[in-house]
Amino acid sequence: MYRSIKWDNGKVVLLDQRALPHRVEYIAYTDYRQLARAITDMVVRGAPAIGDAGAYGVVLACLGAQSTGGASLRDELEDACTFLDAARPTAVNLSWAIRRMRAIIKDGPSEKGPLASALLEEANAILAEDIATNVAIGRNALPLVPLGAKFLHHCNTGALATADYGTALGIIRTAFEAGRCAHAYLDETRPRLQGASLSAWELKELGIPHTVIVDGASGYLMKKIGIDLCVVGCDRVAANGDTANKIGTYNLAIAARAHGVPFYVAAPSSTIDMTMPSGEEIEIEERTPSEITTIGGTVIAPEGTSVWNPAFDVTPADYITALVTEKGVVYPPFTEGLKKLFS
Amino acid sequence: MYRSIKWDNGKVVLLDQRALPHRVEYIAYTDYRQLARAITDMVVRGAPAIGDAGAYGVVLACLGAQSTGGASLRDELEDACTFLDAARPTAVNLSWAIRRMRAIIKDGPSEKGPLASALLEEANAILAEDIATNVAIGRNALPLVPLGAKFLHHCNTGALATADYGTALGIIRTAFEAGRCAHAYLDETRPRLQGASLSAWELKELGIPHTVIVDGASGYLMKKIGIDLCVVGCDRVAANGDTANKIGTYNLAIAARAHGVPFYVAAPSSTIDMTMPSGEEIEIEERTPSEITTIGGTVIAPEGTSVWNPAFDVTPADYITALVTEKGVVYPPFTEGLKKLFS
Repeated sequence: MYRSIKWDNGKVVLLDQRALPHRVEYIAYTDYRQLARAITDMVVRGAPAIGDAGAYGVVLACLGAQSTGGASLRDELEDACTFLDAARPTAVNLSWAIRRMRAIIKDGPSEKGPLASALLEEANAILAEDIATNVAIGRNALPLVPLGAKFLHHCNTGALATADYGTALGIIRTAFEAGRCAHAYLDETRPRLQGASLSAWELKELGIPHTVIVDGASGYLMKKIGIDLCVVGCDRVAANGDTANKIGTYNLAIAARAHGVPFYVAAPSSTIDMTMPSGEEIEIEERTPSEITTIGGTVIAPEGTSVWNPAFDVTPADYITALVTEKGVVYPPFTEGLKKLFS
Repeated sequence: MYRSIKWDNGKVVLLDQRALPHRVEYIAYTDYRQLARAITDMVVRGAPAIGDAGAYGVVLACLGAQSTGGASLRDELEDACTFLDAARPTAVNLSWAIRRMRAIIKDGPSEKGPLASALLEEANAILAEDIATNVAIGRNALPLVPLGAKFLHHCNTGALATADYGTALGIIRTAFEAGRCAHAYLDETRPRLQGASLSAWELKELGIPHTVIVDGASGYLMKKIGIDLCVVGCDRVAANGDTANKIGTYNLAIAARAHGVPFYVAAPSSTIDMTMPSGEEIEIEERTPSEITTIGGTVIAPEGTSVWNPAFDVTPADYITALVTEKGVVYPPFTEGLKKLFS
């Protein structure tokens, strides 16, 4: 049984997702700066998983702190929190998890040892809640899934993108276990190919029938073979329902609309950012051109080719049929529905 | 100056497009069966270029024929035509070019030497017409291009996809030379990445500013940066305007519609198949899964992953703003417009 992230006696152990689907390799971290770097480099990725990893990063920072307590320890950990929070900008879960850790730093024990224990307890709680949330999302989505459903999924949102079970891929898993999922089609998800490499690997492990397509084939797939529903994850949902998620999500939503295919976003409430009025305000990470121009060892474009590589896009709320949260399914109008969800 | 295809004293010389953008390598063919194989393997690709290559393949077949003339030579060449025609199914240009060669076989000289000369003359004419057609398409499209235009282009439709100049990329080239093209954005075009490897290489050679995106980013590009027009090529246009073109074209057309971006198909009249009532009837080639699962030497999906790999999709006429042919621009309703074009 693989785990994307584990706490192991003073170490954070990450499954190196860059080595999948070829090798299952774990890397252990004891320095929070190296862990932050691992988040930036996508050793671990997926909005919930980087939240979990960030939380454990704060525990590492406390264990490795030079100060032994009091204000100087709190200052040191504040700096570490800021450093970890900056590892990736778009997914809100990282900030959200670190905000929870900051509350412990502020109000918890002032001595290093007891504070580290309290921080570990909070990180463990965040991880446990992540799993429980995903199971609940899968259960809440079940009434939306027709018998014999053909799913279309973007990127990776499975056990690898979370502490376990997965969000959108968790919906597929729940549906499959309930006998409702006939087939899962997977966008390969350029540039980093998380669909072809990670989601295909997870569904193979789970024994769920699946087929990979190039991202550009989704509309033609809907037309020729027929898709019953699209399910995707999210990195940040604004208060009006606009959803930042892996680049290509917006194109998929547009294609779904054109074919009358329901488009569902699996959204843990930790990914919903009520401080963002709309998707316009969400910071979109732009990553290195080499993610596009180099695949494995192969350079695919002429040297020096200009590239535009936003890691995410924003799907306007208008394209989303419903947000599936652990607390229930939210339908449009999302502004009202989300307010109610958090009240 | 590179050429995708050249006749060189009894040999057909192809620029091996699989080696681009890294190496400019030419392969010479004297056997029509090997040339057919090169078409299947995409040494040469692009609807007009494979038509040109197929025509020269018939010349090779004649030069290499065992018969010296009469009915037996004609039978032998008929078989060669059938063989060449089967190299790829979707682009109509191959069948169209070979139909022209068949007419020469039927009505031309019966002796091998004179027949080969007549066939070579016809192949040369097809190639020369291809170039003239492309230049005319570029010129006819110019009034559709706003000043400072930002183009979005799919796959490769340049000098490499034709005998020279290109169709949709030819429109960009004409617009650039006329001072109307500010920037060309290029879909990388999975699975074979003709946009990133071939179109980027051609625009670099031409000095036209360009930027590569992943196919899934087209909608977000239209929204965030703004695109003035999409231009694509085609492999077969049905009598009602439905257009088969490289997989991903349909998704691009859907995204263009959602953003009110005009969507133009550069369509040499040789690519318009008036015998096909609609896109439903067009045979869509499905290619090997390894085109998706392997990039360069890198395997990107778990072993044995199921893949759906149609090489083309069909964009319904309804999504197309206009067809730009060498004879003029055709607007909807296409059924009437195309009838008029050929009358």
